[in-house]
Amino acid sequence: MKRQEKLYLGIDGGGSKCKVLLANEQGQALATGMSGPANPNQGLDLAINSIMDATEQALHQAGFASSMVDQLVVGAGLAGVNLPKYRAMLDQWDHPFAQFHITTDLQIACLGAHDGEDGAVIIAGTGSIGMAHVDGNSHELGGYGFSVGDQGSGAWMGVTAIKQTLQAMDGLLPRTELVDQVLEFTQCRTAQELAQQMANLKPSAYAKLAPLVIERAAAKDTLALDIVLNGADYISRLARKLLTYNPPRLSMIGGLAPRIQSWLDEDVRVRVEPAKQPPEIGAILFAQQQALVSEKA
Amino acid sequence: MKRQEKLYLGIDGGGSKCKVLLANEQGQALATGMSGPANPNQGLDLAINSIMDATEQALHQAGFASSMVDQLVVGAGLAGVNLPKYRAMLDQWDHPFAQFHITTDLQIACLGAHDGEDGAVIIAGTGSIGMAHVDGNSHELGGYGFSVGDQGSGAWMGVTAIKQTLQAMDGLLPRTELVDQVLEFTQCRTAQELAQQMANLKPSAYAKLAPLVIERAAAKDTLALDIVLNGADYISRLARKLLTYNPPRLSMIGGLAPRIQSWLDEDVRVRVEPAKQPPEIGAILFAQQQALVSEKA
Repeated sequence: MKRQEKLYLGIDGGGSKCKVLLANEQGQALATGMSGPANPNQGLDLAINSIMDATEQALHQAGFASSMVDQLVVGAGLAGVNLPKYRAMLDQWDHPFAQFHITTDLQIACLGAHDGEDGAVIIAGTGSIGMAHVDGNSHELGGYGFSVGDQGSGAWMGVTAIKQTLQAMDGLLPRTELVDQVLEFTQCRTAQELAQQMANLKPSAYAKLAPLVIERAAAKDTLALDIVLNGADYISRLARKLLTYNPPRLSMIGGLAPRIQSWLDEDVRVRVEPAKQPPEIGAILFAQQQALVSEKA
Repeated sequence: MKRQEKLYLGIDGGGSKCKVLLANEQGQALATGMSGPANPNQGLDLAINSIMDATEQALHQAGFASSMVDQLVVGAGLAGVNLPKYRAMLDQWDHPFAQFHITTDLQIACLGAHDGEDGAVIIAGTGSIGMAHVDGNSHELGGYGFSVGDQGSGAWMGVTAIKQTLQAMDGLLPRTELVDQVLEFTQCRTAQELAQQMANLKPSAYAKLAPLVIERAAAKDTLALDIVLNGADYISRLARKLLTYNPPRLSMIGGLAPRIQSWLDEDVRVRVEPAKQPPEIGAILFAQQQALVSEKA
């Protein structure tokens, strides 16, 4: 069965879950789907499985047969594809779609935040990254990953809290209530226990401590304040640099965004505006833009 | 063949190599041996193989049969045994020695540095850690490992240089010559290449950048200065805390020690004295002390 009308599928594929949105030619939402990790750095097979799983859910929910997959014009924003080797892995996938346009999760977040128009976006969640899209040019900053970047992110705040707690327990920094709360949260009693338990964890495990750190900073805990102000300083500098590209708007998204915003420098804070649409709508907008480009070519 | 005279073996077992020293009852060196990693966190079998390999070398060099191993009173200072689970692994080893006394690499370094007397020691190499041994009490500070500690160490300086270089390439920090030198050292051209190549490396790989950072700091490079001053601040605070235990002497050892010493705060710097003996002599001293304790018991 062939349909005349175009069907669009927007994919927001992150490190923990994959969200898809099925829309008709006018961009009206028909159905959604949700599955597991879809960033290729956790394995190409896993990413493909997650994408296909969420896609079938959406087709099914909309009352279409699975075989309709070959009618879909897909826009996919995937974490990790900013790194060439992961991009190359996905480019080699013999996908079942009518069209499959790949970009970063950052770009679809930016497209969504400004409803397809120019603008800048900062994602502050487990990691941190920023992008400005102005006059057809994209400028990406940060996003280098937990081990050498991601300052100001949830994972960064969490691991920094562990480092400062250990220093305070050694008597090298003043001990504040943050120390007791970190010990309570981790159920550790000694510095050695804490170091052993919290060494070499995944970024998402460290990020679980971030809300506690921000809460203690709000209560003027000096150790926590130092961490949050340092993290906010990075995000402020990131935002300021993005604003040099003259984007009409700047939005912040991600789990940490609402919590860190009030800590940003004044000049940056006044520029932050709410995102207009979620990333999966941004992915649909991307699919529509790329389909137009394909038709013109 | 039984010998009347006691034979002592001192083992300095680190993360990259194992050094042993064979000595007679008077503590005179008879022979040495050298092999691979001997810290149990890289695997108990590997550690045991390294210990036995270096021990046999020393026995052979001194003209003794391998079977003489059962005559040895051994003192072993091993990296990693400060963590209970690795200590437990080694305690369960059915060793072939007459006596096998285990302690940390830190303690034998401290014993060696002060020729068996009280004192404090800071090891600044790939990692960082400190200890004061005064009036029969040991106080250990730092040494929590690369992911949550080891500030001021070579690995910490190296990874911090990568983080600062990436920020400078993003235009979030002033770009100095450190950036060009890091790119030349790593043979990278873009921030993405650098982030991809330098993510999630072993501490020893990051530590290779430390000499470059210290060299640039000496040339007043602001990015490098910031790193080295931050690292030296941690080491100074660590030393100051160790000095509160009133050790008669303070020594610094490890590959970074001679390079970081001049950056320490004045009050700490004037207290640093050269180590009197290397760690493997410290291990012999430890074996002798423990043998005495065993005889009294």
